[in-house]
Amino acid sequence: MELECVKKMLEKGIERAAVVDGLPWKFIEHLCMNGLQIDLMEPGHVVCSMKITPRLLNSNNSFHGGAAALLVDMVGAAVIPSPMTSGVSVEINVSYFDAAYLHEEIEIDARLLRFGKAVAVVSVEFRKKKSGKIFAQGRHTKYLAVASKL
Amino acid sequence: MELECVKKMLEKGIERAAVVDGLPWKFIEHLCMNGLQIDLMEPGHVVCSMKITPRLLNSNNSFHGGAAALLVDMVGAAVIPSPMTSGVSVEINVSYFDAAYLHEEIEIDARLLRFGKAVAVVSVEFRKKKSGKIFAQGRHTKYLAVASKL
Amino acid sequence: MELECVKKMLEKGIERAAVVDGLPWKFIEHLCMNGLQIDLMEPGHVVCSMKITPRLLNSNNSFHGGAAALLVDMVGAAVIPSPMTSGVSVEINVSYFDAAYLHEEIEIDARLLRFGKAVAVVSVEFRKKKSGKIFAQGRHTKYLAVASKL
Amino acid sequence: MELECVKKMLEKGIERAAVVDGLPWKFIEHLCMNGLQIDLMEPGHVVCSMKITPRLLNSNNSFHGGAAALLVDMVGAAVIPSPMTSGVSVEINVSYFDAAYLHEEIEIDARLLRFGKAVAVVSVEFRKKKSGKIFAQGRHTKYLAVASKL
Repeated sequence: MELECVKKMLEKGIERAAVVDGLPWKFIEHLCMNGLQIDLMEPGHVVCSMKITPRLLNSNNSFHGGAAALLVDMVGAAVIPSPMTSGVSVEINVSYFDAAYLHEEIEIDARLLRFGKAVAVVSVEFRKKKSGKIFAQGRHTKYLAVASKL
Repeated sequence: MELECVKKMLEKGIERAAVVDGLPWKFIEHLCMNGLQIDLMEPGHVVCSMKITPRLLNSNNSFHGGAAALLVDMVGAAVIPSPMTSGVSVEINVSYFDAAYLHEEIEIDARLLRFGKAVAVVSVEFRKKKSGKIFAQGRHTKYLAVASKL
Repeated sequence: MELECVKKMLEKGIERAAVVDGLPWKFIEHLCMNGLQIDLMEPGHVVCSMKITPRLLNSNNSFHGGAAALLVDMVGAAVIPSPMTSGVSVEINVSYFDAAYLHEEIEIDARLLRFGKAVAVVSVEFRKKKSGKIFAQGRHTKYLAVASKL
Repeated sequence: MELECVKKMLEKGIERAAVVDGLPWKFIEHLCMNGLQIDLMEPGHVVCSMKITPRLLNSNNSFHGGAAALLVDMVGAAVIPSPMTSGVSVEINVSYFDAAYLHEEIEIDARLLRFGKAVAVVSVEFRKKKSGKIFAQGRHTKYLAVASKL
C-alpha cells in the first residue's frame, strides 16, 4: 500500500474512530481469530482452520499478510505447553508464497520445534484446504520467562 | 497465549461474532492504524506515531506483537514509491526487545533500504516516544510486480 | 564471541593470512560442504548428511551458526529446479534450538515450499542423525531472474 | 546454485578434502574474518571493513550470501558486552539487496539494539565503502546464558 492509500485510510480512520473506540479490549485478537476452528490438538501440534472473512482482506482484496503474522503469533503460541507464565515473543517471521482470497478455506498448522528451559520455537504453515498447497510459512520464537527478565 | 486461552477466546469469539460480522471490509487495517499520525514524510522515509489503544493489547496487557507485525507490513509499504501496482509481500520479520503499554506513545520509523526493479526492502523501527528507546525492529520485503507473477 | 576474541582472532588471522591467501577461489563453499553426502534427491526435496568437522566449530566448540546459515544458503539452493540462471538470494533466516558437536552426524533436509515465476522459497531443517531431533531450522528466499534485475 | 553444481562441487570437494583436513580448528571463522579491520569501536557500536577476497565469492562470482550471514553472526556478537559466557545464537536473518564484487571494499556496521538480562539483539548493515550504499542488512539474536539452559 502506497502512502496515498495510507493517507486515505487515515482519513477514513477518523470517520471510523467512533466504531473502533467502542470495541472491547484486545479486539485485534478477536478479529483475527473470529471463525477459527481447532481441528487437531496433540502435544506439540495444533491444526486450525478458517474461512477468510472480508475483515481480514488487504487493499488487493486478498488475505492480509499482517493477519497471517498475527496468526503465526497466536496459533504459534497455542502449541507451547503452558508454563507459569505465557512468555514473550522474541521474533516472528513469515514468508508469503501465494495469495488467498475471500471465503477461501485455509488450514493453519503449528508444530513445536523446540521447548527448552528458556526458549520455545514454533513453525506455522498456512495451507489452502482444497489443494493442500502451502501459501505461507512462519516461525515464532518465545522467551519463556516473564517479560521483565528479557 | 496457551491453548486454554485460545479455547476461551474462541468461545468468546462466538459471542462476539455478531460484532465482527457487522464490521466493514478490511477492518484489520483500520483497527491497527486507528489513531496513527504521519509525523514526517520524505522520499524513502516515513515516521508515524500513535498511542497504544486497548484494542491493540495482548493477553499480557501489553502492545500486541501481531499488531506490530501488521504495522511493519503497512507502514513499511507506505515508504515504497508507488509503482503501477502495490506489489505483494515476500517476507516480514520482527524482533521484540521490550514491552509497550496502554496509552504509551510510540513512534514507527520506516526507511527504504532497497527499491529495485523487482524487489523493495524496508526497515521498520519502533521507539518509545518519551525515551527514544527502540523496543522492536522489523523488515518487510515486497515483490513489486503483480501477485500472479510471483 | 566478544570483541576481545574478535581482536585476538584478527591478530591470529594476520599470522594465518598466508594460509588463507593460498586457498582456491570460492573456498568458503568447499569448506562448508566438505564431507557432505547427498542421501536423497527427488523433485523439491534433498537430504544431505555430514559429520561435524573441527573446521566448522565456533568458539564454544560447537557447530558454527554461521556455517549452518551457509548450508541453508547452499543446500537450500540445491533444491530449486535449475532455471536459465541460478538466481540471487533475497533473504536467509535461521533459528537455532540446540548445539551440535564435533564428529556428530547431522542431516540437512531441504524442501521446496514455492517455485514461482519470480521467487523460490525453501525450508531447511537440521537434525541430529542419531535421535532425529531438529536442532535448527531456516528459510531461504531467492529471486529467480538475474541479479541486475533485482 | 543448482543440484548439478552441488554435485560437481562435492566431487571437487573430494579432491580438496586433503587441503581442508589440514586446516586448523574453527577455520571457518578465520576464513571469513581474514582481512577484516576494526574501524570504530564504541559501546554498542562496531564498524569493520574488508576487501572482498576470492575465497568469499559464490558461484556467480559475487560476495557469498552465506559469508555475509557468517559476518552477521560474528561481527554482530562482537558488539555485545562480554558477560560471563558468550551466549548462544537464537536467530540470525539477512536480507540481500545488491551484489558486491571481488576486491570491492565493504563496511560492516553492527549496532546493539537490545542488551537485556537474557537476550541481546544486534542489527548488522553492509555498505559499499565507495558509495555508502547499503547492500545487505541482518539481525542477530542471542540468548545470554549458557547453551545448556536454552
